[in-house]
Amino acid sequence: MKYVRNAWYVAAWSQDLPEDKPVAVSILGEPIVLWRSAQAVVALEDRCVHRLAPLSLGRCEKKNLRCMYHGFLYDSTGQVIEIPGQPAIPPKARARKYPAVERHSWIWVWMGDPAYADESLIPPAVGFDEPDWILGNGYLDYAAEAELINDNLLDFSHLSYVHANSFGAPPAFADERPKLTVLPRGVRFERWLVGTHGPVGSRTEQVVDGWSAYDFLIPGVLLMWSGSFPSGTAQQCGFERPDYSRAIAGVTFTSQAVTPTADRAARYFFSWGPHRSHGDEKLRDVLMGVAAMAFAEDKTMIEAQQRIIDRTPEVRILPTGHDRGVMIFSQLVAKRVREEQSRATPT
Amino acid sequence: MKYVRNAWYVAAWSQDLPEDKPVAVSILGEPIVLWRSAQAVVALEDRCVHRLAPLSLGRCEKKNLRCMYHGFLYDSTGQVIEIPGQPAIPPKARARKYPAVERHSWIWVWMGDPAYADESLIPPAVGFDEPDWILGNGYLDYAAEAELINDNLLDFSHLSYVHANSFGAPPAFADERPKLTVLPRGVRFERWLVGTHGPVGSRTEQVVDGWSAYDFLIPGVLLMWSGSFPSGTAQQCGFERPDYSRAIAGVTFTSQAVTPTADRAARYFFSWGPHRSHGDEKLRDVLMGVAAMAFAEDKTMIEAQQRIIDRTPEVRILPTGHDRGVMIFSQLVAKRVREEQSRATPT
Amino acid sequence: MKYVRNAWYVAAWSQDLPEDKPVAVSILGEPIVLWRSAQAVVALEDRCVHRLAPLSLGRCEKKNLRCMYHGFLYDSTGQVIEIPGQPAIPPKARARKYPAVERHSWIWVWMGDPAYADESLIPPAVGFDEPDWILGNGYLDYAAEAELINDNLLDFSHLSYVHANSFGAPPAFADERPKLTVLPRGVRFERWLVGTHGPVGSRTEQVVDGWSAYDFLIPGVLLMWSGSFPSGTAQQCGFERPDYSRAIAGVTFTSQAVTPTADRAARYFFSWGPHRSHGDEKLRDVLMGVAAMAFAEDKTMIEAQQRIIDRTPEVRILPTGHDRGVMIFSQLVAKRVREEQSRATPT
Repeated sequence: MKYVRNAWYVAAWSQDLPEDKPVAVSILGEPIVLWRSAQAVVALEDRCVHRLAPLSLGRCEKKNLRCMYHGFLYDSTGQVIEIPGQPAIPPKARARKYPAVERHSWIWVWMGDPAYADESLIPPAVGFDEPDWILGNGYLDYAAEAELINDNLLDFSHLSYVHANSFGAPPAFADERPKLTVLPRGVRFERWLVGTHGPVGSRTEQVVDGWSAYDFLIPGVLLMWSGSFPSGTAQQCGFERPDYSRAIAGVTFTSQAVTPTADRAARYFFSWGPHRSHGDEKLRDVLMGVAAMAFAEDKTMIEAQQRIIDRTPEVRILPTGHDRGVMIFSQLVAKRVREEQSRATPT
Repeated sequence: MKYVRNAWYVAAWSQDLPEDKPVAVSILGEPIVLWRSAQAVVALEDRCVHRLAPLSLGRCEKKNLRCMYHGFLYDSTGQVIEIPGQPAIPPKARARKYPAVERHSWIWVWMGDPAYADESLIPPAVGFDEPDWILGNGYLDYAAEAELINDNLLDFSHLSYVHANSFGAPPAFADERPKLTVLPRGVRFERWLVGTHGPVGSRTEQVVDGWSAYDFLIPGVLLMWSGSFPSGTAQQCGFERPDYSRAIAGVTFTSQAVTPTADRAARYFFSWGPHRSHGDEKLRDVLMGVAAMAFAEDKTMIEAQQRIIDRTPEVRILPTGHDRGVMIFSQLVAKRVREEQSRATPT
Repeated sequence: MKYVRNAWYVAAWSQDLPEDKPVAVSILGEPIVLWRSAQAVVALEDRCVHRLAPLSLGRCEKKNLRCMYHGFLYDSTGQVIEIPGQPAIPPKARARKYPAVERHSWIWVWMGDPAYADESLIPPAVGFDEPDWILGNGYLDYAAEAELINDNLLDFSHLSYVHANSFGAPPAFADERPKLTVLPRGVRFERWLVGTHGPVGSRTEQVVDGWSAYDFLIPGVLLMWSGSFPSGTAQQCGFERPDYSRAIAGVTFTSQAVTPTADRAARYFFSWGPHRSHGDEKLRDVLMGVAAMAFAEDKTMIEAQQRIIDRTPEVRILPTGHDRGVMIFSQLVAKRVREEQSRATPT
């Protein structure tokens, strides 16, 4: 296993889970049904205890969910509470329940031991409920390992090449390395671009100093803040993090999440948009247009990379200086996976 | 192997096998070519002895079938009787022949030892040649094990859920169990519905007693008779089988057959229609419309069930009271499979 | 391995490799990128040393090729000469280079030991640069082993059956065998058809003697010359090869090449057309229309044959007299494969 289990994975956008219909998702190869039981979001294994029909083809009945094959009724704990034609219900008639939380417009599912499901570990993404931000959102399904998408997001030097036509980073962007900080559950990247005209969608007439910073957090969540500052700010800050309130243009936020759905398959969730003081719905739509183009570029490249990997008898990579973040994150993950496995092994 | 070999499997509808063209089918994973040699239906392995080209791409030439790759000519016993450019024909130049019979508008193929191919074992389906019945027909290809479709047909409690919108059985239908009788080669289900208004397509104004009875026979053939009787008939019969001639409305017959075509693949054949005294071509078309909807509902559910099973490391089911027929039939099949295998093992 | 490595495989039509864009091909299961570096055609493994992204998604930059994932730049030897953000380039940062030659309008790639890459072994096909011939061309991708297509091309008796409706060979064509000569790297087939009216597309009013001759050469290249001669020529030549300059009609040439791209996958390249003295662009288009029909017939048959083979537990064939060429060629190949493997084994 290459992914941690004790983590909150993004399972869906809140708005993609209707009030009255279950939805099928897949995380770490496991089929999961999401549904709403009154105020709570519920995640159960998507598999009726009777004959393994998917509960995601079922019917919401008030606080319960009915399998629509032979009518087993499940409550929000996963317990079967009705079997048509049979009064007795075996106590083991219960579907596995996963901890699930709705926050920041995402539905998060904890794939590990429920005893460790600590909600404070949910990354501080920005949802549609936060009035300061005007966000668009979407997702893409990849025919590739989530790990390859994580690698991609942990090394932005690809912006100069994969996204030469969309985000429009020049070759020089890849010649420099961002500042990198190791976090307990991830890696932080920070970067000043001195003397630019701002990013695509928010070009400025005057020369500015551009700042962008993102955290990439276990299991695969990217949270990025960008903004343009008066020329000279970078210098004044000693090239450290600026006072965000001094930004004069182009402030945007993006949340991105990579969820391994199955072997060689992943779902990539994303939102992006301007701060209300630096843009409007129109700018959000421009940014979403750029994102659509750029994320398709990534997908083309990464799926092709996966196909080459699949045809390679002995996979070897040749890391570069830009791979430092990739390596730190992958070691963080590998360490936790080992810990989880040793914990799971009875002594 | 989970299916019996010594059985007549439905290979095709009679009308789907032209006079002058071979047809490819697949049964138990074996490629078979069907063709008509004068009056007889012939089933051979669909594989030329020369270089394994399919004979189903061949050409009917009077009583013979020619492989259209290099021209080998086969007679109706499977023997090669002509090799272009070569006068001598090796005696081993022979394709395996399967016993095949055309009856009840179906072409039946015996997959086991030809020595046991007893035509009296062909289930007494109703074909288009029986003038009392006005039947429609069709088939669906499933991406699922035939066994799962058999299970479905052996437990009609799913009508209340899968078919809530098509056959329209109420939840109460699933609360009661039909009478079940074990047959030498299958299971019989019989049921009175007291005080109804008849089934979909044949609703009655007056209250009636509805009777339906079906046999589900090895290898996977369902034969069902339904009809409406004067209110009180169920009581008068002691809830046993009524005198069919006393039916006053809604008499229909359906033949259904499930053929395992390959691993996780099956073909599901069906006919349905009214007795001439209880309906006409128009009613048949109404019933076929209902069937199209209902059988698509089954297919959606069962293929989804198969996908969940495929993703389940350790498959365990939790049988209910309604599963009695499923279990009896599956034990019947398992016993015969064991017998076939021990017979096949040299002592 | 069933194919030789020390051979020139057709990788592409010259015109399908642009001046300024790389192209992905696959030979013997290996992903290869073709590109033009100044005058030379270059073939490298299609796999960046960094993280295995395909170089075929890269960008031609003068004589070099840049990976468009993170910007590694390759020269025409496969050596990495630039890594963005990192001055030092490890010497092992090098992609495997395959010998490649452009000739006869084909790009040929040598899959074996470069030390043996002798250009004189490139079969003498006819390209678009030869003014005497007016050729059309194309290719088809097969979901079948190259070996099955080779077998097909090594036994033209299938023309009477597979191509009864396109090339229009009568059954009698398959009753006779062509003269067969073993070549150092293939097999030669020669045949007189006495008293015909010429082939499809070049029918003659007067009776003629038709000649056709083709070499089928390792790894899978067919070169065929056909023409019509005055009636009696076959007799005068003692049924040997005629003086080609005495042809009076229907002189055409076809080059065909079968390249194994992957397991159960092949690309089939072909050209066909008249000699300038015996036809024009219009005749070429007629012939290409016939070819499109005929080669689709082959593809249907051979892909179906492959599917049957895949479903056959123990594959056995029953060779006929017409299979002599197939067997000689397959023994030639098997002998070379054995030699290559023993050479590769350290003593």
